[in-house]
Amino acid sequence: MKPRFFLVSAALLLLLAACGKSPDNIIRTNVPARPAGQQSALGLTAEPIETVRIGVVGLGMRGSFGVERLSLVPGAVVTALCDLLPDRVEASKADLARMGKPAPTGCYSGEQESWRGLCEQEDVDLVYICTDWLNHYPIAMYAMQCGKHVAIEVPAALDMDEIWGLVNQSEKTRKHCMMLENCVYDFFEMTSLEMARRGLFGEIIHVEGAYCHNLDPFWDEYWNNWRLDYNQKYRGDVYPTHGIGPVCQVLGIHRGDRMTTLVSMDTKSFNGVRIASNHTGMPVTEFANGDETSTLIRTEKGKTLLIEHDVMTPRPYSRMYQLVGTDGYASKYPIQEYCLRVDKPEGETNARHISDEKVYRGEEMTALQEGYRNSILTPELEKLAKEVGGHGGMDFIMDYRLVYCLRHGLPLDMDVYDLAEWCCIAPLSRLSLENGSMPVEVPDFTRGEWNKVAGFHYALAK
Amino acid sequence: MKPRFFLVSAALLLLLAACGKSPDNIIRTNVPARPAGQQSALGLTAEPIETVRIGVVGLGMRGSFGVERLSLVPGAVVTALCDLLPDRVEASKADLARMGKPAPTGCYSGEQESWRGLCEQEDVDLVYICTDWLNHYPIAMYAMQCGKHVAIEVPAALDMDEIWGLVNQSEKTRKHCMMLENCVYDFFEMTSLEMARRGLFGEIIHVEGAYCHNLDPFWDEYWNNWRLDYNQKYRGDVYPTHGIGPVCQVLGIHRGDRMTTLVSMDTKSFNGVRIASNHTGMPVTEFANGDETSTLIRTEKGKTLLIEHDVMTPRPYSRMYQLVGTDGYASKYPIQEYCLRVDKPEGETNARHISDEKVYRGEEMTALQEGYRNSILTPELEKLAKEVGGHGGMDFIMDYRLVYCLRHGLPLDMDVYDLAEWCCIAPLSRLSLENGSMPVEVPDFTRGEWNKVAGFHYALAK
Repeated sequence: MKPRFFLVSAALLLLLAACGKSPDNIIRTNVPARPAGQQSALGLTAEPIETVRIGVVGLGMRGSFGVERLSLVPGAVVTALCDLLPDRVEASKADLARMGKPAPTGCYSGEQESWRGLCEQEDVDLVYICTDWLNHYPIAMYAMQCGKHVAIEVPAALDMDEIWGLVNQSEKTRKHCMMLENCVYDFFEMTSLEMARRGLFGEIIHVEGAYCHNLDPFWDEYWNNWRLDYNQKYRGDVYPTHGIGPVCQVLGIHRGDRMTTLVSMDTKSFNGVRIASNHTGMPVTEFANGDETSTLIRTEKGKTLLIEHDVMTPRPYSRMYQLVGTDGYASKYPIQEYCLRVDKPEGETNARHISDEKVYRGEEMTALQEGYRNSILTPELEKLAKEVGGHGGMDFIMDYRLVYCLRHGLPLDMDVYDLAEWCCIAPLSRLSLENGSMPVEVPDFTRGEWNKVAGFHYALAK
Repeated sequence: MKPRFFLVSAALLLLLAACGKSPDNIIRTNVPARPAGQQSALGLTAEPIETVRIGVVGLGMRGSFGVERLSLVPGAVVTALCDLLPDRVEASKADLARMGKPAPTGCYSGEQESWRGLCEQEDVDLVYICTDWLNHYPIAMYAMQCGKHVAIEVPAALDMDEIWGLVNQSEKTRKHCMMLENCVYDFFEMTSLEMARRGLFGEIIHVEGAYCHNLDPFWDEYWNNWRLDYNQKYRGDVYPTHGIGPVCQVLGIHRGDRMTTLVSMDTKSFNGVRIASNHTGMPVTEFANGDETSTLIRTEKGKTLLIEHDVMTPRPYSRMYQLVGTDGYASKYPIQEYCLRVDKPEGETNARHISDEKVYRGEEMTALQEGYRNSILTPELEKLAKEVGGHGGMDFIMDYRLVYCLRHGLPLDMDVYDLAEWCCIAPLSRLSLENGSMPVEVPDFTRGEWNKVAGFHYALAK
């Protein structure tokens, strides 16, 4: 081959490679092959544990309440506590004593990696991780390596490497790796899920979820300013799980459908940059996270999700939670309502069979909900949840279900693939935004098994 | 040059051209150069018209009510009527007689292009077009050619050629070309616009608008099935203007900001295909329009818009109308509410200056609105609008303002660039959807003048 011709051909090939994403107009994401000797974690079960011994890492806002709640779950006992700050460990220890619970057999603090001791502790079955976001991953990985099940606060993982890391570790170690997404256990969400499963809304074709919460009164609460700092560094919907979790259960994601494509769009930082300056007392000029981020996702079955994130503006708290179905509709914010198709047969005023709709609010809504009690919500659990509280009881129901399934050796309500799917919105929305809102491929974290299970269901002991 | 080398080089160039959109990850849209001898229509005014003589074309649902309303606007008279169906012309003529109004001097019907006669009629200043969507464009073009101002029902134009055609025709003929977007005159929207203009919400950074309306009870009302038929043929948000109009006024689009990028995502057709089968009595297998279409748009100033379209599912009527500002928030559906920042100075419980938020609903909301009366809403107009009615008075206010501005030789509230911007969402969302949700460039219809006017304002006579 002549040199000049070779050079041009090489340039041609390079250009083809550079344009590689052009023909299908999407940014491809890598699905790493499953390492040898490792099996799917779909429907993963483990040996029943009569009394679930729990080590809690991170005793700030979420963790300290977690300790109290977990102590009240039948069949659970908190056997280990860990926080960087010794004061916090002492406070939780005191809480347990005040509640008449056994003292933890292990307490860890003072070092950045004090949690290693907790993960290694013999009488711990489950490591319950409530630290800042950056520490979720190393702790969870080490805990599974030590043979413990893990439950991780939201978001459990922050980038694709971490997400695949958790998937692989759970598949390899056969340990449960669950994200503590509490919002799937809120009353309206649980009831609407039951309605959807029983076909009240027909086929659900579009859903919406959000985390719209003015965090200005809360930024001081985070140790070492970690949360605002994270928002300052990263663009994208960094906190998608409360919005996407409940609606993914309704759509049966990796249970008959899967997310395939995502596009994201954000505002520039208007308040963020100002809040960071105000908070740190230093002039901040760059703030990566937009005040409002909106993400659209399409599924294999031609359905769509809208997920929003806004923690920067003064507005009413909203997780949206909207279900649009072929025969009905549910919406939680700003008011709870349902809407159902009303069929009108052919008659005097209409020449053909048409359908109108009826809105249910207030008492009519409550009456409608009565017929759709969620199967996990036994009167006993409901009573207990209301007594214990924690975000209106949903935190307790989450802990209860986690412990219940571990005690009975059942699959958990949320598996590591749910974790992966809900968390990946953060890095993938960032990827879309950094490429001018280009569509991004959402990978199949089950590696081919998304269509094996028919719809979401709870495991119940016989 | 050697042939082989030439061929490879040519292939290289072709490939470069094919990949042209790849480097910036966006589908470019053409902005045709302004034809010679034609000026911008920004702030367009025309000679004052003492009594505005109006010819109404299309006397179905919207047109027949339009005739009645226009007859009640001070300084307006309906002088011509046109519809394909003679019965409809007779019915509107009878309405005018019943109201004690002068008989129209011209009536046109029976032919597909009967409207030509109306456009040519001497004593017509304004052609008011309420036909099916497909006829908007030819009638409007011919009317301007005949020296008439035009007002066109929504959506005024359906594709980019039609949109640029109307822009050019208005610029060339110096005739007003306004879209009859009534929703900008609804009370909550007008009041919130006034609040936004006076800075109550700080800077508006994100807005939402929609047309969510179960049309199942209405499909029979459209002559020759034109509306369902159009939805069956075209993908995209084919009816965006009610959602986008009011929020574009708030953002001051082409009055200091402009839309730059759009991405769209839709569901497949679940109900549409079924409704078409049911309605036509024939088995329909292909239906282009998704049941739900969502579109995200970014502006030059880093703000975002979300626009939704759903006419296929049973759900509560909603145009969303949500404004997210740096200091406050407004939302109309499903309940009307405002939310404003409440500053809390440094104090005992907080170490720094933080801000909380306060929600206004019901009576508190009404009291808040009292202070933000829209400048066009004189007590006289409000009273008249309530008497006349028509979508809660907003239709009448729209007609009143149109006639008022024509009578005083003022720029209209909505110009041909508003029409273009609001209508282009239909063809551009289709373009995005047909390319897997690729970002699409939104053109600057003012051709460089989007930053000349500082914010939206109403023209008022001195």
